[in-house]
This record gives sequence, C-alpha cells and structure tokens, in this order.
Amino acid sequence: MEVVQLLHMKGGNGDTSYSNNSLLQRKVISMTKPILKKATVDLYSAMNFPKTIVMADLGCSSGPNTLLVAATFIKMINEISLKMGHEPPEIQIHLNDLPGNDFNIVFLSLPKFLESLRKDVCHSNPSTPSCYFSGVAGSFYTRLFPSKSLHFVHSSYSLMWLSQVPELEETNKGNIYMSSTSPSSVIRAYYQQFQTDFSMFLKCRADEMVSGGRMVLTILGRRSDDPCSKECCYIWELLAMALNDMVYEVHLPFYRR
Amino acid sequence: MEVVQLLHMKGGNGDTSYSNNSLLQRKVISMTKPILKKATVDLYSAMNFPKTIVMADLGCSSGPNTLLVAATFIKMINEISLKMGHEPPEIQIHLNDLPGNDFNIVFLSLPKFLESLRKDVCHSNPSTPSCYFSGVAGSFYTRLFPSKSLHFVHSSYSLMWLSQVPELEETNKGNIYMSSTSPSSVIRAYYQQFQTDFSMFLKCRADEMVSGGRMVLTILGRRSDDPCSKECCYIWELLAMALNDMVYEVHLPFYRR
Repeated sequence: MEVVQLLHMKGGNGDTSYSNNSLLQRKVISMTKPILKKATVDLYSAMNFPKTIVMADLGCSSGPNTLLVAATFIKMINEISLKMGHEPPEIQIHLNDLPGNDFNIVFLSLPKFLESLRKDVCHSNPSTPSCYFSGVAGSFYTRLFPSKSLHFVHSSYSLMWLSQVPELEETNKGNIYMSSTSPSSVIRAYYQQFQTDFSMFLKCRADEMVSGGRMVLTILGRRSDDPCSKECCYIWELLAMALNDMVYEVHLPFYRR
Repeated sequence: MEVVQLLHMKGGNGDTSYSNNSLLQRKVISMTKPILKKATVDLYSAMNFPKTIVMADLGCSSGPNTLLVAATFIKMINEISLKMGHEPPEIQIHLNDLPGNDFNIVFLSLPKFLESLRKDVCHSNPSTPSCYFSGVAGSFYTRLFPSKSLHFVHSSYSLMWLSQVPELEETNKGNIYMSSTSPSSVIRAYYQQFQTDFSMFLKCRADEMVSGGRMVLTILGRRSDDPCSKECCYIWELLAMALNDMVYEVHLPFYRR
C-alpha cells in the first residue's frame, strides 16, 4: 500500500492520540501567528476586499490545532473589515489531510467551534462573517482544488513529510532515516525526494491559487549544515534502535529439514 | 443533544452498516438516472460549457451509493464535452451529510474510486475531466456553501428527514411518528415542520446556486391521501411497538419507603 493511503496522525482523542499529543505543533502555530496575521491583512486589502475568500489549510490533522489557524484567519478578516468599514466577506475554509486522517472527529467538533467563534467575533462586530468548512482528503503533492479557486494557503509542520520513502541505491544499514552511518547516496536520495516533492507542491498551488493570493508555509528545519546532526535525526535513531531490538527478539519456532 | 448532532446512518462497512443495507436507496438512484442525465446536459449547455462545474450531493451518507451520483455526473459531463468538441471542465464535488456521518470511510474509498473512474472515462476520452472531492458536514437546512458557488445540487432519499422532531401540543399516544391513533394536532405539526424545513432548504440553495443552475431532488412520497396510510407509516409503527415492549420489560430493582 502506498504512503498516501497509510500515513496519518493517530485519530480519536484518547491518551495516545495526536489530538492529545500535539502541544509542540500548537506552539509552532502560535509562534507564526504574527506572520499569518500580516499575510491575511495583505491579502484582504490587495484583493480589494472581495465578497468571498477561500482558504486551504494543508496537513490540518485532527485535534485542537486543526481549527486554530482557521479561527485566527476568520478573526483577522473580521477585524480588518470592521476597521475599514466593509461588510465581512463569506469565508470558505478547506481542511486538507491524507485520506487516513480522522476527519470524523474534526467534523464533530465543528458545531461547537462555530458557536464559540460566533460569540468571540460577535463581541467585536455585530455582522459576523459567514464561514463554510469542508474536508479535502488527498496528498498535497497532487492537485486538490480547481484552478484559480484559492486565495490563501496555509501549511504548518507538514511539508517535511515526503510523498514516499526515497528510492535508495544501497541499503541504509538498519537506519529508518538519514543517520550518521547512512551512505552518502542515501542522504542524496532524501534531498532529491524533498526537492521533487516541494517543486510539485509549488506547481500544484500555482495552478490552484488566484493571482495575488498568499501562502504561509511553516516547515521543520535545522540550524546545522549537517543533515544528520543530532538536532533533527536523534529521535528517528532512537526509534530505529527500538525497531532493531524488536527484530532481534523474534525467534521463529520453525524447522525444515 | 440536537438531532443534527445525533442523526446519521450506521457507519463502517459491517453487516449492519448502512453501507451494506442500502440497496433500496441504490435502486432509487438508478431509477432517477435519466432525470439526472437530462439535468446535467441541460446545465452544461445552458452555462455555455464553463471551465469549472461545482456540484453538491446533499445527504450523501457513506457506502457504495455515496459516489454513485458523482460518477454518473462526471461521466455525463465527459460524454457531452467529447460530443461537442470541448475540453472537459474541472469538476468540484461536495459530498454533504450531517456531522455524525462516516466521512472517514468515504474519504478512504476515494483513491480507488478515482482510479476506476479514470479507467472508465479514459476509455472514451483521452482528456479526462479533473475531479476534486470534498466533504461538507452540516444540516442542509442551513447554509453550507458561499453565495453563488454551486452549479448543480442533487439530493436523493434525504429530504424526508426533518430538521427536528416537531413540537407537539399533545402526546402522540406511544407512537414515534404519525400513526392512525395520532391526534390531528400531531399530523398538523409534522406537516408544518416539513413545510418550514423544505422552505428553508430552498431558500439556502437559492442563495448558494448560480443563476441558471439545476437541482435534482428525490423525496420519499406516498400515493395515498392519508398521511397515516400503511404504505408510509407501517415500518415506524412496528418500531414503536418494539420500543414500547422494551419499556414494559424494564423493572427497576429499587424501593424507597
């Protein structure tokens, strides 16, 4: 089965769900809020206060972070229209993730979210914007929307996930990711896969966005020049060790002579 | 909790799921196919072969029927564009149902559906239409889409579900629906609820659809003038009897003196 069919954050809202283990991702969204706000203001004024604004959040996952960006976006649009004396526009928000994402839990949380948003926004503006949500299941490395249909694209902490495991010329010596013991061909394969994927992402969005639209992309990066530095690979090395240990513990009760 | 939060067909694809018990609804869709086809042709030519067509299926449920209407719509558009020598348009399809609907299972079935559609359609036209699917969770008795954003609306076997249980002036004598023993005020309350709901449905769609758009609505009806005739109420009378029997069997092991 392909990665696009398999990969997803853990659904539901149990103790081990992504929903209950995504504080880091929440912090990242909070840190980039000023950038999101600036881009929203830029877009809305540059577009000359359109009647409808369509926004897509790519890699939305499921949990409390899913609607966080949408809430900020809606509140900002509302604030600016109030300030400039314009009627708030209708806002359509597409929440995208891979088909295995728990969209059910996102949809079930929508009525409560909209109610609290209405209370929040009504406080500052009696004429609240109308918001319409949709879920879009598919890889953001493919086309997801009709041509020229999006004004704003947001993606946080998602674009470091590649579309597939790169094809490797030689084995990765028991590693599950780039590591200090990985051959240089493996490092190159990962780099090239990212380049291919990110180019495809930009190509698709270029088709889908209206001219003058805005994007805010937050990607996990590294400070070090070394792609195998501890700051980005250590967690995967630990996971690889655990997986290798598990393999050593398997002893098949089977003998054929 | 409100009806909109609770009501849904049984999800998953087990023996008792809606997915495995919706042959009747499938038959209805097949019977109305000629009407759907005619409306699609009318729309596409009347709109002068637009580059993008947006369609919404309201009350899509989950299971094999969910994508049946979409498939017919896409194939028809493809056939006409081939016949008239036009480039096939981009088609955006919004699948709508209440928030409790099992959208996860619909989204998981999409990649396979698109693959088989591509094979089917490519056979007749090398330049296949691009299709973009989304799930929209909410009651179709409210606004679901931005103004003037839909070209085509379809709804099959859904509009007989009211937005709420009507407010009744007197008790319904152990019935769970209109029945031969229901007081006339109950019959009136159900009728008025349908009128209110259906008017609201039309009002919302009037805002959401572009001028010249098309709708195909299939609603469960009755031949008899009597709203309590066996043809439409019998199944609910049986269910009411079973529920009443269950209540009689409850004996609380509790005594307070």
